[in-house]
Amino acid sequence: MPLPQLDDIERAADRLAGYAVRTPLLRSDALDQLAGCQLFIKAECLQRTGSFKFRGSCNHMAQLPTEKVRQGVIAYSSGNHAQGVAQAARLFGGQATIVMPHDAPSVKRQGAEGDGAEIVGYHRNSEDREAIGTALSEERGLSLIRPYDDAWVIAGQGTVGLEAARQLRDLSLAADVAIAPCGGGGLIAGTSLALKAAFPDVDVFSAEPEGFDDTARSLVSGQREGNRPGAQSICDALLAPEPGEITFAINRTTLTGGVAVSDADAREAMRAAFRHLNIVVEPGGAVALAAVLGGKLEIRGKTVLVVVSGGNVDADLFAETLRTS
Amino acid sequence: MPLPQLDDIERAADRLAGYAVRTPLLRSDALDQLAGCQLFIKAECLQRTGSFKFRGSCNHMAQLPTEKVRQGVIAYSSGNHAQGVAQAARLFGGQATIVMPHDAPSVKRQGAEGDGAEIVGYHRNSEDREAIGTALSEERGLSLIRPYDDAWVIAGQGTVGLEAARQLRDLSLAADVAIAPCGGGGLIAGTSLALKAAFPDVDVFSAEPEGFDDTARSLVSGQREGNRPGAQSICDALLAPEPGEITFAINRTTLTGGVAVSDADAREAMRAAFRHLNIVVEPGGAVALAAVLGGKLEIRGKTVLVVVSGGNVDADLFAETLRTS
Repeated sequence: MPLPQLDDIERAADRLAGYAVRTPLLRSDALDQLAGCQLFIKAECLQRTGSFKFRGSCNHMAQLPTEKVRQGVIAYSSGNHAQGVAQAARLFGGQATIVMPHDAPSVKRQGAEGDGAEIVGYHRNSEDREAIGTALSEERGLSLIRPYDDAWVIAGQGTVGLEAARQLRDLSLAADVAIAPCGGGGLIAGTSLALKAAFPDVDVFSAEPEGFDDTARSLVSGQREGNRPGAQSICDALLAPEPGEITFAINRTTLTGGVAVSDADAREAMRAAFRHLNIVVEPGGAVALAAVLGGKLEIRGKTVLVVVSGGNVDADLFAETLRTS
Repeated sequence: MPLPQLDDIERAADRLAGYAVRTPLLRSDALDQLAGCQLFIKAECLQRTGSFKFRGSCNHMAQLPTEKVRQGVIAYSSGNHAQGVAQAARLFGGQATIVMPHDAPSVKRQGAEGDGAEIVGYHRNSEDREAIGTALSEERGLSLIRPYDDAWVIAGQGTVGLEAARQLRDLSLAADVAIAPCGGGGLIAGTSLALKAAFPDVDVFSAEPEGFDDTARSLVSGQREGNRPGAQSICDALLAPEPGEITFAINRTTLTGGVAVSDADAREAMRAAFRHLNIVVEPGGAVALAAVLGGKLEIRGKTVLVVVSGGNVDADLFAETLRTS
């Protein structure tokens, strides 16, 4: 499969028009002071289904033949891709089966169920979701929509970068630095493609949870590195075992590097977004903001684009996070 | 002083361009199901300073002579107008003095202080903020910016309605019903003017906390009615003692009626906005959404515009609200 190009992202944007939300670029003087630079937050927590994932699944679904949509689709996902696929399926007249870990946040499970998806549970540490998904796909004749290693999905996620670039240009600005959360790498792959096309000198970074910094380490070694088994993080959306094949083929050419943040840093960023932007951000959605606020990048005085990728967090975890400052 | 007209709101929109955020119209299938209609949420919690109030203070500040701005401005406010005035003053090169109740949410106080405002505290139940503000204004030569009974402020707040009308038209929709939070009535006055001009058949309602439903009762009696002393509500932004003179002169002609909601209803709406929209809404900002979700209006099958007016809420209160469902 050829790697997705800018052109694919532009066509994805056309397909998504009328479906996906053109999410706002938010900013705050107080956040700028904290970060020591000019920050623009691409708020994908305000996207349909509460995360950027809808963009990729919608772009995939729009290109599936009608009969395939009617036969049904299947996805394995920690929750946000699940909701994206479930809602895109409903909008296009199909039904989704979702292979989801038993410990997924209940808001994510409920979101997918609300769109009529059938949930098949699995154990995150002892079962192979990809194997379960592939087997079910063959057994039931369902089209598999992979969460990141899929050119259509990557092109859809790239519309985050395309939109943000246009929004910055509308303000007569260019991004010096951009950073986005990274699990399997689909968001940062598509987004970095679009941003490098708009701003050739921009430095783009991936942000990952500590213990799941496979992309950061792979960028250093030049080959795909896996995460050590047994690592834990509250960033449930970013626990992919290793970079995708397609995503890493892109990211190795577009990214300047990767940074990792602790769960405590992610929670601090969730509080900052609550306090200064009035948005609800889930732990995994907050890691890029966490990297910026935690001083992980050389950004003083620069124009910095930060993707906040999702906001699907259970009320208990959010309340606990607000109370542990 | 002549009442503000549509024309004043359109000119306010021009003045605010580049300062105020064009806040998004958010929606959610799940919320639509809960409400039984097609809901569009004008998310002013994403406005600069975290509430719509910036629009009015900025529109006033932009029309003040430079020398007046340099001499300084003063406002009395429960907190959101304070932050709006403080930030508008800073942006236009002046400094604000704010008369604010001792029990104002600390995020609101900190927000105003962060913009360099001097805070003068007063006791909400035993002191008259208007008298303190007027006295200080005269003593120090400061220009007083009233929170709602001011034509420039009302015209600025009206840009909420102007923008929302344009956003609905971009979707080829017209509002059948619109509802916004109401304290002194500036937001609903300006917004209803703009909405009635765009959609002559729209029914516009004010939403107030129980015990502070002065506008609803005034609309029924045809004259300005005050609130009974001693009433309490967590909706700190909406505790004005009676409708404004200018605001009521508008609202009696533009509003279909007013509804009141309980603190429990407001909290339920805060949780719904957290869950389905990923936005942070303060109690007073949530009363219009609360009215809609609580079945206070006949809206089945209609297109309904709901203004969420602010999101400045202390972390403890928000966490407590998430936990008491």
